[in-house]
Amino acid sequence: MSSIVTIMASEIAQEPEAVRRTLDALLPQRDEVRAAYVGRNRVLFASRGSSRNAATYGRYLLEALAGVGAESINPSIVTHYGARLDLSDAMVIVVSQSGATEEIVQIAQWARECGASVVAVTNVDGSPLTKGADVALVTQAGEERAVPATKTYLTQLIAMAVIADALGAGLAEALVRVPAEVERLVAATESVAPAVPVIRDAKHVVVSGRGMCMGTALETALKFEETCLVPVRGYSYADLRHGPISVIEPSVVAVLVSAADGPLSGAMADLAADLQARGASVVGIGGDDTFAQGCDVHISGPDLPEALAPIGLAVPAQLLVEQVARALGRDPDSPRGLAKVTRSDTD
Amino acid sequence: MSSIVTIMASEIAQEPEAVRRTLDALLPQRDEVRAAYVGRNRVLFASRGSSRNAATYGRYLLEALAGVGAESINPSIVTHYGARLDLSDAMVIVVSQSGATEEIVQIAQWARECGASVVAVTNVDGSPLTKGADVALVTQAGEERAVPATKTYLTQLIAMAVIADALGAGLAEALVRVPAEVERLVAATESVAPAVPVIRDAKHVVVSGRGMCMGTALETALKFEETCLVPVRGYSYADLRHGPISVIEPSVVAVLVSAADGPLSGAMADLAADLQARGASVVGIGGDDTFAQGCDVHISGPDLPEALAPIGLAVPAQLLVEQVARALGRDPDSPRGLAKVTRSDTD
Repeated sequence: MSSIVTIMASEIAQEPEAVRRTLDALLPQRDEVRAAYVGRNRVLFASRGSSRNAATYGRYLLEALAGVGAESINPSIVTHYGARLDLSDAMVIVVSQSGATEEIVQIAQWARECGASVVAVTNVDGSPLTKGADVALVTQAGEERAVPATKTYLTQLIAMAVIADALGAGLAEALVRVPAEVERLVAATESVAPAVPVIRDAKHVVVSGRGMCMGTALETALKFEETCLVPVRGYSYADLRHGPISVIEPSVVAVLVSAADGPLSGAMADLAADLQARGASVVGIGGDDTFAQGCDVHISGPDLPEALAPIGLAVPAQLLVEQVARALGRDPDSPRGLAKVTRSDTD
Repeated sequence: MSSIVTIMASEIAQEPEAVRRTLDALLPQRDEVRAAYVGRNRVLFASRGSSRNAATYGRYLLEALAGVGAESINPSIVTHYGARLDLSDAMVIVVSQSGATEEIVQIAQWARECGASVVAVTNVDGSPLTKGADVALVTQAGEERAVPATKTYLTQLIAMAVIADALGAGLAEALVRVPAEVERLVAATESVAPAVPVIRDAKHVVVSGRGMCMGTALETALKFEETCLVPVRGYSYADLRHGPISVIEPSVVAVLVSAADGPLSGAMADLAADLQARGASVVGIGGDDTFAQGCDVHISGPDLPEALAPIGLAVPAQLLVEQVARALGRDPDSPRGLAKVTRSDTD
C-alpha cells in the first residue's frame, strides 16, 4: 500500500493509548456499576450503529460469563410508538459515542421514567447522555475526526468488559493484557496487506462470526460498508448456515472473525472449509491453528482469551478496511453521505 | 412471466386458507396464553431464520401495543456457552416451523429449567417443540414442500398477532379482515411484474422497513437471498440512515416495505425520496399515497391497519421473490445448499 496516512489510520495508531486511558478511568467505577444493578435482574442496551455492535459484545459477556440476562431495545418502540414498559427490574445501558444522538438521549429519559437505573457509555464528558445517568462511563478515546469509528469503538468494548467484570464476569486479570496486545496488532499494518486485493476485487463480501465475536464481525461489515461504499452483509455463523449459505459461490469473499479458543473456534474452522467447498475465498482473522491453515488468506489475531479476543480482533479488521478503502480509491476519512452525529429527527 | 407453476407459487396460493384455518385454531387458545403469562413481566423469543423474522414482528406488537417487554435470546448463549439466567419472570416463546430444530428444542428445555413458562409456535403437531411447552400454538399451514417458507411464515405472523391480542394488543376486530386481504393479494400475481426486471438487473439489492414492518423487510431480504442466491442486505430504516446509506448509488435497487398508516409511514416516503436522490431505483410495497407516488415502481399493499399490515405485505414480497428467482433462471423450490430442517449440530 502507499504511504499516505489517513486520519483513520492515525486514529487506529492511537488505540493503544486510548485503551490504556479508558481502562484506568473505568476500572475504578466498577463499584458504581454494581450499585446501579442492586435490586435489578436484567440489563437492556439501547444503541445504534457501531455502538450497537459494541453492545452486542456486552450482551454476550453478561449472559455467558456473568449470568445476567442482557437484551436490546428497539429504539422506535420508544421514539415512535411511545411504549410504556415496566423496567423496575432492569438496568438500561445507553451507548453513544457522541452522547448526543437524540434518540438515545430520549431512550435514557424514558428508561428512567419506566423505573430502570441508567448507565451511560459515551466518549464525551458532559454530553447530554452523561447528565441523566446514574453512572456515566466516559471512554477516553480523545476526539475522533474520521467518520468511521475506530478508537471510540475499541474503548466502548473496554467499557463493556468493565461492566461485565463489575457484574461478575471475572475479566479483570486478563484485561490488563489488552493494551499491549492492541499495541502489537496496531503496529502490524502489513499483516493485512495480502487480503487487500482479494477483497478489493470481490463481487460480494460477507462477514461472519459467532458468539463473543459476533459484534466485531458485524462492526467489520459496517465499516466495510461505510468506507468502501458497497453493501456488505454481516451474518452470525448460524444464520449463514440456516439459509443464506446458498448465496456463497466463487464470486463471494467471506471474511471470518474468530477467537483462538472457546466453544466456537472449532466451528469457525469448519465454516471456513465449507465456504471454500462452495467456491468462496476465505479471509480469516484470528482463530486457532486449524482455522488459520484452512483460510485462503489469514491475518493473525490477538493472544487473548475468547472473552477479550473481540477487542484485539477489531484492530486488524479496521486496518484491513482502511487499506481496502484506499485500494478502491475511496477516502476512508469522510465517506459520501455520512455525518459524525446521526440526526435524531430522521431516526 | 411464463406460466410455469412452481411449488413455491402454489404454496403462496394456499395462503388464504392457511391463514383462515390458523386463526380458527389459535384464537380460542388466547386464554391458555394469558394463563402462561400470569405472574410474568416480560417475553423472550427464541428462533432462527424466517421464524426469527416472525418473532421480530411479535416483539413490536407486544411492546408497542400490549406494553409487554419482548426481547430476543441469542441461541449460542444456551447451546455453546451454557448460560444460567433467572427467567422466573419471563414467558419464553419458541418459534420453529418444523418444531424439530434442535437448538430451539434445547432452548425450550433450558428456559423451563431457568424458571420460564414456555409457549411453542410450530407448524407440526406432536413435534418435539410442542411436547415440552405449557402452550402449543400449532399453525395450520399444512405441509410445506418448497424450501423457502411462505405459507408457514404467514401463519407464524398470525400466531404472533394472536399472542399479542391475548396479552392486550387489541387486534381481534381487525384480525378477522386479514384472510380476505390475503386472498386479494395472492390473486394479484401480475401486480409485482413491473418490479421483476428492475430487481433482476440490479447489481445490489437492499431491503428496508421499520417498526412493525421490520420483520417483513428482513424476511423479504432473506427470501431474496435464499431463492435468488445473491447477498441481499435487510436494513432497518434507521440503521440505513445511521451509516450504510453511503452505499446507495445508481447500481443499487432499494426495496421498501411500508404500512399505509402509523407513525412511520411518512418517514418511509421521505426515505424513498432520499434514496432516489442518491441515484437508487426504489421498488415500494404498500405505504401511503405519497410513498406510492415517490417510488420508481410501486406494488399495492393490504388495506389493513399498521399492526396487521406486515401479514399482508409479506404476500406481494413473496410473489416478487418467486418471479425474480425464475427470471434469473433459478429454481425457487430447491435453492442450492438449503435443507428444510436446519441441522442443529451445526447451529
